[in-house]
Amino acid sequence: MPIRIVSPGSRRVAVLGAGSWGTTFGKILADGGSDVAIWARRPELAREISESKRNSDYLPGINLPRRLWSSSLLPDVLEGAEYVFVSVPSQSVRENLLIVRELIPKDTIVVSLMKGVEKGTGMRMSEVIREVLDIDEDRIAVASGPNLALEIAKEQPTAAVVSSTSMETATAVAVAATNPYFRSYVNTDVIGTEFGGVLKNLIAVAIGIVDGVGYGENTKASIITRGLVEMTDFAVAYGARPETLSGLAGLGDLIATCESSLSRNNTAGRLLGQGYSFSDVVAQMNQTAEGLASVAPVLRLAEAKGVDMPIVAQVAQVLAGTMNPRDIAPHLTTDSDEPRPES
Amino acid sequence: MPIRIVSPGSRRVAVLGAGSWGTTFGKILADGGSDVAIWARRPELAREISESKRNSDYLPGINLPRRLWSSSLLPDVLEGAEYVFVSVPSQSVRENLLIVRELIPKDTIVVSLMKGVEKGTGMRMSEVIREVLDIDEDRIAVASGPNLALEIAKEQPTAAVVSSTSMETATAVAVAATNPYFRSYVNTDVIGTEFGGVLKNLIAVAIGIVDGVGYGENTKASIITRGLVEMTDFAVAYGARPETLSGLAGLGDLIATCESSLSRNNTAGRLLGQGYSFSDVVAQMNQTAEGLASVAPVLRLAEAKGVDMPIVAQVAQVLAGTMNPRDIAPHLTTDSDEPRPES
Repeated sequence: MPIRIVSPGSRRVAVLGAGSWGTTFGKILADGGSDVAIWARRPELAREISESKRNSDYLPGINLPRRLWSSSLLPDVLEGAEYVFVSVPSQSVRENLLIVRELIPKDTIVVSLMKGVEKGTGMRMSEVIREVLDIDEDRIAVASGPNLALEIAKEQPTAAVVSSTSMETATAVAVAATNPYFRSYVNTDVIGTEFGGVLKNLIAVAIGIVDGVGYGENTKASIITRGLVEMTDFAVAYGARPETLSGLAGLGDLIATCESSLSRNNTAGRLLGQGYSFSDVVAQMNQTAEGLASVAPVLRLAEAKGVDMPIVAQVAQVLAGTMNPRDIAPHLTTDSDEPRPES
Repeated sequence: MPIRIVSPGSRRVAVLGAGSWGTTFGKILADGGSDVAIWARRPELAREISESKRNSDYLPGINLPRRLWSSSLLPDVLEGAEYVFVSVPSQSVRENLLIVRELIPKDTIVVSLMKGVEKGTGMRMSEVIREVLDIDEDRIAVASGPNLALEIAKEQPTAAVVSSTSMETATAVAVAATNPYFRSYVNTDVIGTEFGGVLKNLIAVAIGIVDGVGYGENTKASIITRGLVEMTDFAVAYGARPETLSGLAGLGDLIATCESSLSRNNTAGRLLGQGYSFSDVVAQMNQTAEGLASVAPVLRLAEAKGVDMPIVAQVAQVLAGTMNPRDIAPHLTTDSDEPRPES
């Protein structure tokens, strides 16, 4: 086992998950002064991270900090951790947490780095954490924002937000997640922060469609702006504060996702805009983009609260093959022309 | 003089200014069912628009609608106009309005299509209109949003906002400015709507710097989001409503400007990011980008109200040569690391 460098008096944190985002967040924390242990499922990846200070599959070309260490053994990683950051696939979070449940020290703060809702239950990630670990919500936080991992791993300046029902918890986590290239802001609106990361995928599909059709920046800016209105209306109907959606976990993440040509949701939309059918796209991408899978359930939840989501509704029509992608617009063209208030 | 097609019973509107935005807005109005007369300063441009239905200098390749007509004679253009849309350079609006003052029919609604503040007085465009024409503010409106003229002239789907202290006026203008590819929303926050169009130029310079340095979409999304916070704080301190800045005239225009490589502010920033000095950039661009000229006055106005504008302050430092463009970030790096609330 490699020698683990522990600086006297420094904060011990654990990150569960050694994918691109978990590893990048580990680097953020290490560069912010913490001693970081990352759990990797595969022993050979843990070894590469610890010995070579690289994660060549997920973050090619990035040198990881000396204060970052990895193991495939959960007890080693979790021992003495003040904070546990969770970055596993959103659909496997429940089974992973069941395993670590007994290993997490009492009073540890658990931070979700994940975006998405659990299929079947529809629960947000912080809700799954709370249910499985049976801990007080003030010990849970979520970190979100524009999270293009490789750009952050290259130390390009970034802002993010840490949210917890406890401002004290949010602030403590934000202190750990701040360094010269990464600045964490705080809020106490966990619902809005988590919904931002889910809903942006739907608007990113719409932007992909616009790209595929060949419309330019003006249409995209219109759809992003009006898309933010429907994201906000939806989230507020489910208990969020509107300003959270205008912040880093809503707007910030939305812009980064819409402008990144690597985003799966953007790619799926682009193929649809080029005229491929839903089934073509699923076949071609070898994997369903999260945004496509969320369209129907989100529209059902919107309808239940009487929230209009004209852009998401148009994406649904394009998916169903009942609308020509060229007709996509920041508004429903079948609507009355009567001018409406912006918000 | 060309035959002017006037449809019986249809709305008569005038547009002052035959640049790319004035002509595009004339097309929007004509495609919305109005009979549109555009005033062009140069008779040969008026003739080209009327006879060839083209404005080849400003909108190459765009066919203008039959219901759009142009003249260099103001009385012809203004006769019987229910609405007068003004789209002249922001620094010549006062002299132009002084000329038309006696020609504008009583009860006409005057709509500003311009962005900027008057040098010397610091007045917003609607304030100049009100002062020079001496009309009630309920007869004045402003139209704003993501306004990349050529893309709209190509009929790419777009949303915009019309603002007036009178909701009735805003709605009437929005009805005229709505057609299948262009949808106008309404609000009554003229201050916020106009400040959005001014302040976005400053953030666009910052995004240009980020581009020039070579940072990616994550840094841009962070700076746009945090930039919107400081635009909002500034505008609210001067009487705007925060939701206006999150709308089409704030966020929408900001995104379109930041993502358009044709934007002068973006170009100026990009040159700064590549290491050119302020004087190099001014020399190279043959014209000052509006955003560069506004940095110092906006920071003075912000300071007067105690508003923090860390991104604009960093642009000022880059312009002054006291900050390396590589150090630009969504926050002031000289700040304390203490986490702050998002909004």
